[in-house]
Amino acid sequence: MGLEEERQKVNFCVTNLSRFLISQVLPEVSFERWRELKEKIIKVPALINSLECYSDTREDALNRGIRHGMALRDFSIREKLTSAERRIVMGFFPQLSPYILHYDFFMNGFFLQASEEQKAQFADKFETLEVVGCYAQTELGHGSNVRGLETQAIYHAERDEFILNSPTITSMKWWIGGLGIAATHALVVAKLIVKEQDLGPHTFFVQIRNMKTHSPLPGVFVGDIGPKPANHATDNGFLRFEFARVPKSAMLTRFARINDKGDYEILDPNALKILYSSIVRARTNLVKDAWHFSVIAATIGIRYSLVREQFPDPENPKAERKLIDYQIQRYKLFTVLSRLYATVFVRSSITELYNESERRMVTFDGSLLGELHALSSLYKGYITAITLENIETCRRCCGGHGYSMYSGLPSLYATYLPSVTYDGDNSILTLQAVRYMVNTIKKINKGQPVPDKYSFLAKPIPNLSGTQNPACPNFHQACFQAISHYTLHKLAKKEADYLKIGAKKEKVWSDYLQVEGIEAAETFFYVSSHEDFIKGLSLITDQNTRQAVEYLRQIYAISEMEKYNGLLLNLGASVETIENMKQTLLEALDKARNNAIGLIEAFDEPDEILNSVLGRRDGNVYQSMLNAAKYLNPINKTSVYPGIQQYLRPKI
Amino acid sequence: MGLEEERQKVNFCVTNLSRFLISQVLPEVSFERWRELKEKIIKVPALINSLECYSDTREDALNRGIRHGMALRDFSIREKLTSAERRIVMGFFPQLSPYILHYDFFMNGFFLQASEEQKAQFADKFETLEVVGCYAQTELGHGSNVRGLETQAIYHAERDEFILNSPTITSMKWWIGGLGIAATHALVVAKLIVKEQDLGPHTFFVQIRNMKTHSPLPGVFVGDIGPKPANHATDNGFLRFEFARVPKSAMLTRFARINDKGDYEILDPNALKILYSSIVRARTNLVKDAWHFSVIAATIGIRYSLVREQFPDPENPKAERKLIDYQIQRYKLFTVLSRLYATVFVRSSITELYNESERRMVTFDGSLLGELHALSSLYKGYITAITLENIETCRRCCGGHGYSMYSGLPSLYATYLPSVTYDGDNSILTLQAVRYMVNTIKKINKGQPVPDKYSFLAKPIPNLSGTQNPACPNFHQACFQAISHYTLHKLAKKEADYLKIGAKKEKVWSDYLQVEGIEAAETFFYVSSHEDFIKGLSLITDQNTRQAVEYLRQIYAISEMEKYNGLLLNLGASVETIENMKQTLLEALDKARNNAIGLIEAFDEPDEILNSVLGRRDGNVYQSMLNAAKYLNPINKTSVYPGIQQYLRPKI
Repeated sequence: MGLEEERQKVNFCVTNLSRFLISQVLPEVSFERWRELKEKIIKVPALINSLECYSDTREDALNRGIRHGMALRDFSIREKLTSAERRIVMGFFPQLSPYILHYDFFMNGFFLQASEEQKAQFADKFETLEVVGCYAQTELGHGSNVRGLETQAIYHAERDEFILNSPTITSMKWWIGGLGIAATHALVVAKLIVKEQDLGPHTFFVQIRNMKTHSPLPGVFVGDIGPKPANHATDNGFLRFEFARVPKSAMLTRFARINDKGDYEILDPNALKILYSSIVRARTNLVKDAWHFSVIAATIGIRYSLVREQFPDPENPKAERKLIDYQIQRYKLFTVLSRLYATVFVRSSITELYNESERRMVTFDGSLLGELHALSSLYKGYITAITLENIETCRRCCGGHGYSMYSGLPSLYATYLPSVTYDGDNSILTLQAVRYMVNTIKKINKGQPVPDKYSFLAKPIPNLSGTQNPACPNFHQACFQAISHYTLHKLAKKEADYLKIGAKKEKVWSDYLQVEGIEAAETFFYVSSHEDFIKGLSLITDQNTRQAVEYLRQIYAISEMEKYNGLLLNLGASVETIENMKQTLLEALDKARNNAIGLIEAFDEPDEILNSVLGRRDGNVYQSMLNAAKYLNPINKTSVYPGIQQYLRPKI
Repeated sequence: MGLEEERQKVNFCVTNLSRFLISQVLPEVSFERWRELKEKIIKVPALINSLECYSDTREDALNRGIRHGMALRDFSIREKLTSAERRIVMGFFPQLSPYILHYDFFMNGFFLQASEEQKAQFADKFETLEVVGCYAQTELGHGSNVRGLETQAIYHAERDEFILNSPTITSMKWWIGGLGIAATHALVVAKLIVKEQDLGPHTFFVQIRNMKTHSPLPGVFVGDIGPKPANHATDNGFLRFEFARVPKSAMLTRFARINDKGDYEILDPNALKILYSSIVRARTNLVKDAWHFSVIAATIGIRYSLVREQFPDPENPKAERKLIDYQIQRYKLFTVLSRLYATVFVRSSITELYNESERRMVTFDGSLLGELHALSSLYKGYITAITLENIETCRRCCGGHGYSMYSGLPSLYATYLPSVTYDGDNSILTLQAVRYMVNTIKKINKGQPVPDKYSFLAKPIPNLSGTQNPACPNFHQACFQAISHYTLHKLAKKEADYLKIGAKKEKVWSDYLQVEGIEAAETFFYVSSHEDFIKGLSLITDQNTRQAVEYLRQIYAISEMEKYNGLLLNLGASVETIENMKQTLLEALDKARNNAIGLIEAFDEPDEILNSVLGRRDGNVYQSMLNAAKYLNPINKTSVYPGIQQYLRPKI
């Protein structure tokens, strides 16, 4: 009713936009196949979450994760899923599980580093889950600094085998997903020690549990690290080796091996390049997956704001007003929506760069790796942070009911939360990205060529003065470029000044330039993401649709630019221009009002993924809340809660 | 060891600062009594949380809440606690529970609105928990808009009683803490209907459960609304009345009653003023309690950053560097610390205003209520938002381990999360505050007097041009005043312009000025909170201590001011001044480095409240993490997790 009426107000074809969006976010899967898969997936209960999950104990959740793993395996085999299709299936269970990590994370790591023989030995067993693996890198005392890992793999020449040992508490593997209860094997990153020489981190594929009884093997102390705010189905684990004996074949030997003479031998000089490329891949994937979380949140937030009414309508005091009709609610929701569309277009651009880099890597041409590493680090940092903020903004847009787990939003937030830390802490990654930017400026200063995205840094600062069209994409881009140009050149100059007076480079980047460095990196993020946005927009052929998304671009550009007003003035923009841009932003909020539901429903997120009483397609919010509380909440099983009789009544 | 060394570096007397801080945040309790109470509380296990809580099922948590209620009652009676002292005890169980809400929230509501006779009848039973109450106002479809409540209390003249009825799904009481399983009685806000006339919301004290069996009474449909991200010990509940018969004595009759003739009769013309004052009281309390959450988070974040090491030290490549020695980590932690100190000083200032208003209210002089309402709404909005951000910033400062529940931070965040919504959604409150500010400007324009805090709005805009001391408190205050002066006058002008062209005032404030209104309110928040900060600083007598806190003030002022650089330039500040301020901020981060542990440990938060493996006083982080995972995590009870044998093995 309410929502159907709202859907009538959309002035473009939602299915057409849907086709376009799916081509951007799932380029490997056709629109028809995507729809077909969705229909099939929702018929397999073990593949989807339900409102009951929100009352899961940790054990319930772990069991659900195991059953999900089985169902995922069976569905994959039955439907002959490609890996892109398997990721669609995983999206219906929006949290991690040991088997999702096995298929998605562990297997990539193994196949990258294993010899052909090792691959052939295990490939089938991985698919059937006979062998379940986990990627054991992080240690209790060591995260981002891989060089600091303490686990030892000592080659024992006489027995021609390895001894794996964890010499300290801080050397215990920790946080490893899949390790706590599920994995039979672990991909262990350890310092290879041959003839008392430390050869640095290498990877070993080590059996840790008995294949029949599942009991830990001798010398292996393993378990689950304990409760987390979400991802309860995942068994993040710890692992200590106590002089465990491991066969020589455990070492993954694509890149290096211990030869028959017992000597260390490098087999592939491209190892570093290839490993580097795989780290970049993991980061890129986080950027590529982010849109889905914002879509879930925004679908719930926008639908609820079109149903929920509050306070009398000034024009019709007997009726209450929909939340969306308050300016501040539109501001919150539509900045979320604009950042979601930015995320979609950023995804396309990083995917393009990544694919091109992969093409070159076939011939071990690593020429794009530096640029890709910098851009994926930058995007990973900001896109994950923005996505998390989007979820929380939508939660607050649902008022008090956003604090109910049945809203679907608290669990979405808590599930996504670790992504700002894992695969590289956002601050560390951003600092890596900005050092690439500063080096790019050094190249410019030396007259060397730089990648296209950075070419504006070699040109004069754009002129922002005079009368400007406050809604113009090119003007907005000029503003972002001017801001970033000024900030990055200033930063490069600061670094040069420090070095000139004899400061060590590492000290400059740990003690003096981190705060300003991260601020400078952010300016480039806007240059780059707004460029991606303009490019993405240009691909939309239908005029009404393009105009609807253009209002989101205006909201994105102007709302993100506001914090740089000082710089804009300093760089020549007039006070009038800045005030006109603000007015343009406020008007865009009104113009986006009626299309909002179309802009979000084009992602066509099924109720089974939303798993939310507030975000349902039918808008039947209140009855669903009541049903959930009444029928699904285990606390209401008895009319008198047993604890009252047990703990309170005897003491009154 | 590590932490003891760090403690030696502090250059002021921590105990002296402690005395000062406790006098600010717990003015009703002496330093000695506070210390004595802490010693006694930690000896009562039921009064404190433990690491085991993080593995609680919902039922475990509810039972823990019930036992906590019993222990709180017994301890209160045994120690003859004042209500301020009782709040200290509650602070050791940093989440809500039915009985905390009963003592702290329900009882206030009851005593405010009950007649002397009603008070006498129940006072003792409340203390002993024979009668447990809850405050049932919010409905499924109605939150902030109290006028929109639908629950009906129909006076039935023949039977001289009330009929309570919930005519729709949206009229069900919802979210009521204490209602789900615990309360025997509910304070129900319902529309009073006498002789078919709707007399608006009134309060009824209604028995809902049998006093012996605890079963719901006839006509009462009651239960728990379901899972939440935290506050699991609280039974937020729903309640539907199905033509329940309620005795006439249920109506709380301090302000109005149904007289013997069956007519509605107002007893106290000050009712509105008094009720208004109680709403303000609840908001003020949220501001007053916020410091404690930031203290917990910052203690954990700072201690861990002094223990955790990462990446080689540029000056000593064999050793790793403490996290706190990275500039960006100091920036994050010390802005948290600076906002915490701001929160402490804001607390003192709102308490003073509140107490003065209370003094006047004794003679029903409500002259301060408007100002108090505006300031408490503004402070509630920003202080709760800042506190929540502080917790999350500290969590991220703990890297990957911040995602473990054992860190203490995810639960702290989730527990505090609803405070940005309850007792008035922050956006709504901020808009109420800004409308007071705009009205104040109207008074100024009419030449009428205004409260001191607002007097700068009547003066010329401070001059920011020329050479300025970038660390000077008065200059910072002048900057905030200039920003706020400009923004608020501009907003008032905009409102006037809209009204001039015939727009309805309510429409102006729902459709046109919400975004800019909230932005403008924020500028005043800084004027006011920074003024409080300067005043608070002036009370510190020891010079080293004052200097240590002064660096935090610089960090607070400059880091919060950065977003207004555009306005500052526009208002005459030079680019040089702005750049010098940034440099001052970065230097303050270095100067605060060695005192940080003293500045946070002066709050002397016991390990029992922190409930964190990362934040322990002894700094023994890694061993504690291992112990928790090994001994407290129920998943490790068996060496093979049963679900693997049950769900996986049969299908391989």
